[in-house]
Amino acid sequence: MGTETREVRALEQGEGGRVLRLLDQRRLPGEEIWRELREIEPLAEAIETLTVRGAPAIGCAAAAGLAAASFGFAAERDKFDAQVREALERLARTRPTAVNLFVALDELRAVLDGAEPACPVEELQRRFVDAARVHIEKDVAMNRAMGAHGAALLPTGGVLTHCNTGALATGGVGTALGVIRAAHERGTALRVFVDETRPLLQGARLTAWELIQEGIPATLIADNMAGAMMAQGKIAAAIVGADRITRRGDVANKIGTYSVAVLCHHHKIPFFVAAPWTTVDLSLEDGADIPIEQRPADEVRVHGGTLMTPASVDVENPAFDVTPAELITAIITDRGAVAPRRLLELGST
Amino acid sequence: MGTETREVRALEQGEGGRVLRLLDQRRLPGEEIWRELREIEPLAEAIETLTVRGAPAIGCAAAAGLAAASFGFAAERDKFDAQVREALERLARTRPTAVNLFVALDELRAVLDGAEPACPVEELQRRFVDAARVHIEKDVAMNRAMGAHGAALLPTGGVLTHCNTGALATGGVGTALGVIRAAHERGTALRVFVDETRPLLQGARLTAWELIQEGIPATLIADNMAGAMMAQGKIAAAIVGADRITRRGDVANKIGTYSVAVLCHHHKIPFFVAAPWTTVDLSLEDGADIPIEQRPADEVRVHGGTLMTPASVDVENPAFDVTPAELITAIITDRGAVAPRRLLELGST
Repeated sequence: MGTETREVRALEQGEGGRVLRLLDQRRLPGEEIWRELREIEPLAEAIETLTVRGAPAIGCAAAAGLAAASFGFAAERDKFDAQVREALERLARTRPTAVNLFVALDELRAVLDGAEPACPVEELQRRFVDAARVHIEKDVAMNRAMGAHGAALLPTGGVLTHCNTGALATGGVGTALGVIRAAHERGTALRVFVDETRPLLQGARLTAWELIQEGIPATLIADNMAGAMMAQGKIAAAIVGADRITRRGDVANKIGTYSVAVLCHHHKIPFFVAAPWTTVDLSLEDGADIPIEQRPADEVRVHGGTLMTPASVDVENPAFDVTPAELITAIITDRGAVAPRRLLELGST
Repeated sequence: MGTETREVRALEQGEGGRVLRLLDQRRLPGEEIWRELREIEPLAEAIETLTVRGAPAIGCAAAAGLAAASFGFAAERDKFDAQVREALERLARTRPTAVNLFVALDELRAVLDGAEPACPVEELQRRFVDAARVHIEKDVAMNRAMGAHGAALLPTGGVLTHCNTGALATGGVGTALGVIRAAHERGTALRVFVDETRPLLQGARLTAWELIQEGIPATLIADNMAGAMMAQGKIAAAIVGADRITRRGDVANKIGTYSVAVLCHHHKIPFFVAAPWTTVDLSLEDGADIPIEQRPADEVRVHGGTLMTPASVDVENPAFDVTPAELITAIITDRGAVAPRRLLELGST
């Protein structure tokens, strides 16, 4: 079943980079539908509506999508450059919390900034495509490095995870789920407890689907069952991804992550965060500085297309929460795994 | 809006007790459909399929439903008695966790056991109807007493609740939600944060609906958001109901309650349990002795009628969890509100 696994991808560059193909994650696991994107506005909307989601995958999609769209821009450098900068601004407005998006956009901006005035548009388009490809390949390589650093940390037994941090959330392989896979591959006998992850059910829809494809034992639970599973001794560790990490090691991740961390702390269960070093935002000291995206109320009101509560009810729907460094056993990055207080030591690696 | 509120009922006796009318809670809040029950098997299935749910309401429904069904039993005492005992056994098999069901069945069994051999069937049927009416009236009176004892304990601000413990979960008024309503009526400025309560969404479907009818400010959240709301300082207290309480004050309640209690403990937020004294099972010392019902996996797999995960995925679906006494600030009963370690002092009241 390992062969099937390697086929799981959230996105791919096609036609020499002139098109971005996105697996529509809103339709999984029921249907596997690929979308072809060649323009900025549909790309921005695909990110906003979670056709593609997961912090690293958003960065990959933005890079490859902008590169593809640049083939539709003006043939004169002045106009072309203006269109690229407009596109960078539009894409930066799609989702505020994950830092990977901004890293990817900065990489493409650097390509533009570094190009001599005489550089033809065709050459710039090629450089964008290459930059996007490198971004995706680097993401996959970082995930494999995280797996190598993190696999030994996972104990035998139940491993709780939240949201989806697998191949679908990244350029490939996955962050937290990549570590789980690496532990599974080295023979650690584990069963993954998958938080369904309301409201958008990335756990139920995506993580459960990936784990079944990979043949890794998995048990789906409602988010509110994690505490009871811990009290019953079924959970030996928890591992999650991250959308942004501050200098002191505070972690923004999918809403519900913080509750899992508190529950682990109460039960003295190790709580791990796996994310590439690029997720660390060196401009932020503290978790309170991380902007948290609020999403539409109907994501909470509607279940599987059906309104399940009075339509007028007030709703809170933050997409993320912040877990303070004190609740985190170790942060696993491609540069190594350390306690949060030692995070910045990895910066000079 | 208070007038509307008093109309909310989960059930009523009709035709002089010959019929039990149940509001079908599976269809709320979309539709208000009343079911008429006159036989044991449909009654048992209505309890099993959660047409009626909530520990006290189940007890009320079992009593009134058996009384109604007894009008269809044999006219000879021997056969009639055998049918009653068979019905008591069938109803006892419906749901294992809530103690109220067994209290109600014991009350009806006592009516039968106390009847002289010459007592005519018609007289027994009348006594059953009366016993059921008294059970329901007592439940409402206990809920009002809990409101009186508990209202002063709730602080101003956000009050988190889990599942539905309102008029729909009881003979009327509600347990934890009854305390919230009593606090609201005495002028405490509060906003109820309603856990949606996966998998069956009693919070989203029922509690949100009741609170809107009552004009009490309410905000719906996914269960995994409770921790983030606490970290943001939005929750001043939590209050939940109970399906069974042991001598040492351990509380079985809707799955997810335990996680809320741990989160409250971590944030130093008071965590209250409101339940009638009859919920205390004096035969049990410890929470580990409480039988926990496991429900069908598809309750977790399916959302609003739509399968949202691979159909083959393994699932855990315990209907309840156990919160140890140490995490509970006070248990509010109709006999008074006390710390769990003092619970048994109420037994002599």
